[in-house]
Amino acid sequence: MLKGNAIVGQSGGPTSVINASLAGVIKGALAVAEIETIYGAEHGVEGVLAENFINLSERFADPAQLELLIHTPAAYLGSCRRKLPKTFDETFVKIFDIFKKHHIAYFFYIGGNDSMDTVHKLSQYAKQIGYPINIIGVPKTIDNDLAITDHTPGFGSAAKYIASSIREVACDAQVYDTNTVTIIEIMGRNAGWLTAAAALARTDKEAAPHLIYLPELAFDVDKFVSDVEKVSKKYKNVIAVVSEGIKTAEGKYVCEGATADIVDSFGHKQLSGTARVLSDIIHEKFGWKVRSIEFSLLQRCAAHIASQTDVSEAEQIGTAGVKAAVSGETGNMMYFKRVSENPYTVEILSHDISTIANVEKIVPREWINEEGNDILQPALDYMLPLVQGESAAKFDGGLPVYLKK
Amino acid sequence: MLKGNAIVGQSGGPTSVINASLAGVIKGALAVAEIETIYGAEHGVEGVLAENFINLSERFADPAQLELLIHTPAAYLGSCRRKLPKTFDETFVKIFDIFKKHHIAYFFYIGGNDSMDTVHKLSQYAKQIGYPINIIGVPKTIDNDLAITDHTPGFGSAAKYIASSIREVACDAQVYDTNTVTIIEIMGRNAGWLTAAAALARTDKEAAPHLIYLPELAFDVDKFVSDVEKVSKKYKNVIAVVSEGIKTAEGKYVCEGATADIVDSFGHKQLSGTARVLSDIIHEKFGWKVRSIEFSLLQRCAAHIASQTDVSEAEQIGTAGVKAAVSGETGNMMYFKRVSENPYTVEILSHDISTIANVEKIVPREWINEEGNDILQPALDYMLPLVQGESAAKFDGGLPVYLKK
Repeated sequence: MLKGNAIVGQSGGPTSVINASLAGVIKGALAVAEIETIYGAEHGVEGVLAENFINLSERFADPAQLELLIHTPAAYLGSCRRKLPKTFDETFVKIFDIFKKHHIAYFFYIGGNDSMDTVHKLSQYAKQIGYPINIIGVPKTIDNDLAITDHTPGFGSAAKYIASSIREVACDAQVYDTNTVTIIEIMGRNAGWLTAAAALARTDKEAAPHLIYLPELAFDVDKFVSDVEKVSKKYKNVIAVVSEGIKTAEGKYVCEGATADIVDSFGHKQLSGTARVLSDIIHEKFGWKVRSIEFSLLQRCAAHIASQTDVSEAEQIGTAGVKAAVSGETGNMMYFKRVSENPYTVEILSHDISTIANVEKIVPREWINEEGNDILQPALDYMLPLVQGESAAKFDGGLPVYLKK
Repeated sequence: MLKGNAIVGQSGGPTSVINASLAGVIKGALAVAEIETIYGAEHGVEGVLAENFINLSERFADPAQLELLIHTPAAYLGSCRRKLPKTFDETFVKIFDIFKKHHIAYFFYIGGNDSMDTVHKLSQYAKQIGYPINIIGVPKTIDNDLAITDHTPGFGSAAKYIASSIREVACDAQVYDTNTVTIIEIMGRNAGWLTAAAALARTDKEAAPHLIYLPELAFDVDKFVSDVEKVSKKYKNVIAVVSEGIKTAEGKYVCEGATADIVDSFGHKQLSGTARVLSDIIHEKFGWKVRSIEFSLLQRCAAHIASQTDVSEAEQIGTAGVKAAVSGETGNMMYFKRVSENPYTVEILSHDISTIANVEKIVPREWINEEGNDILQPALDYMLPLVQGESAAKFDGGLPVYLKK
């Protein structure tokens, strides 16, 4: 059995519960004899390469601090978007020199698709050079687009925020006795899971949202206009939900033109303004009051309304990752297997990461209605257990308390 | 003492707690012998004129329904923006014919500035024609811009949402090891109370938000750019908060041009895009990743994170309105007088509405720093008690439960 120190890092976009997974890893590491000290790498592999480490065994000796960490959104250790090269070049040599120097026998990486690619490559390289280390991926992403796992930590909380907020916006939208259209834009470039979660807001078949458009299907602006017109005959205050990533059949983002010149620091085109573009079209066509709302960052960081199911699972999967590593596993990602629907129960298992990295799981076509403007019951049945339970985030002085580094 | 039926109406923009005031009025009305039946007018005075009434005595005979109403955001009865004419024309004649027909001896109007004008005019007209009715205004507005009252119901909950969300955005904004600027746009056309509430997010002097711009002072774009540059030397991830209503010294809205053609259904120019305009300027100037976030409707309807202080006070001021009316008062608005800071305590009193209607209370100059890019401690001391306590909103199936009409 391997014995030595461990490093944990966080990578990719923030979520409300990625720190719960970090806390789970720390708890797991503190509990096993095989891990002497657990270090946190600041900003993922960047922190490994720069040897920017925090001694988490010391920092979190006090369980009250770990409890605060569990409920703190975003990435406590900082994150990065760095992808490792395709070939085993000097970056790998450097990383393993640093591992050796710090007696690292375990490496845990909490992240999404790109991060699982890092886990895969590092574990492959370790095997090739015969370096004794167990490397485990712990999944996270609000996008819920990772393969193999039933769902990803982070998704449930984002879904809960989205559904709750839409329920509130629906109350707000109906106060005036005039025709209104509210278009809400949800994160998710290629996978429509979060946009689909908007449907959880419905209290009955008649309730908002009335129209839902996922990026899985081509978006037809004319069809959208006629959908809104049709729905507006039944409901005075129409609420439509669109993914930021909806594209026309020609593959053009709906928001293109509006934001074509804004590229984020990772070279991704910043997708925003989709709802705004559509609002302008509807306002011009019908003259109604039209409002566009972007939930923006809040859907991934509003920890005060995190799903307790999500928080607990995120912590558990972190701890399970440590157990798997200590028992000798490497090159695997931990995942959830849903073993029962009623009551909802999951098992935490591990799976060879090579079949997970770089694969995107999208919403199945059969969970979207034929018209392509709503989702179907199986999607609701799948999502509902994931938003259950209210977070025990601590409030002090009227505001949620989050941990600072 | 007057005896008969009562009407209650809601008017102006929604808040998280305007229904708590409605519940307070209903509870008050159900408890006094002078009021036989309490009716709700749908969409404020519009509902009076159209005789669209809901029998609230029947609808809320079950206290559990009232409890749900307390925590439901927006305006349960529907709202309107109708202002009554300056002269006592046929609209007044019609309203009082309807009052007479339904034996209305009490009228309660929950609203902001414009609504208090309605209360004033109706009570003046009643006196003139000698119609026996007591008319009381119950304040509400997230903008906190009503005169006389220490604060308005609705402000505390919006302030709590804004401060909590900024604290979460601040966690999110600092995950990457690169320069970023996040510009957050807050509601409030002329009064900067809600924008000032952003400062409550700070956990210490170093914490976000780093810059705050209120509409009370002229906004200088060049000064803003140099402020951001200066702050960015100390903080890698700058968070700036701006009111939607900031204007240049020439009186031009910062967002003008961007949204000049969008006018809402009440003829107000829709102010949005201020943060976006400023983001584009900063991005162009420095090349950093810049993000604009509009809290949009959520700041006025996110009842799941309402301030319990605000919820309780909103209910109490509604009930107090009924007591005042029954004791013979008319043409008054109920208001809060802060009688002690430590512990925070308020008295609910009433005041002649003629000195309140159409007066806008703005943030005092001495509560804003000299540079005009931050607020000072007295403003924090004033606001902090108003965001205390977490709402007891009911959750079911993982989501907040709100009442439907």
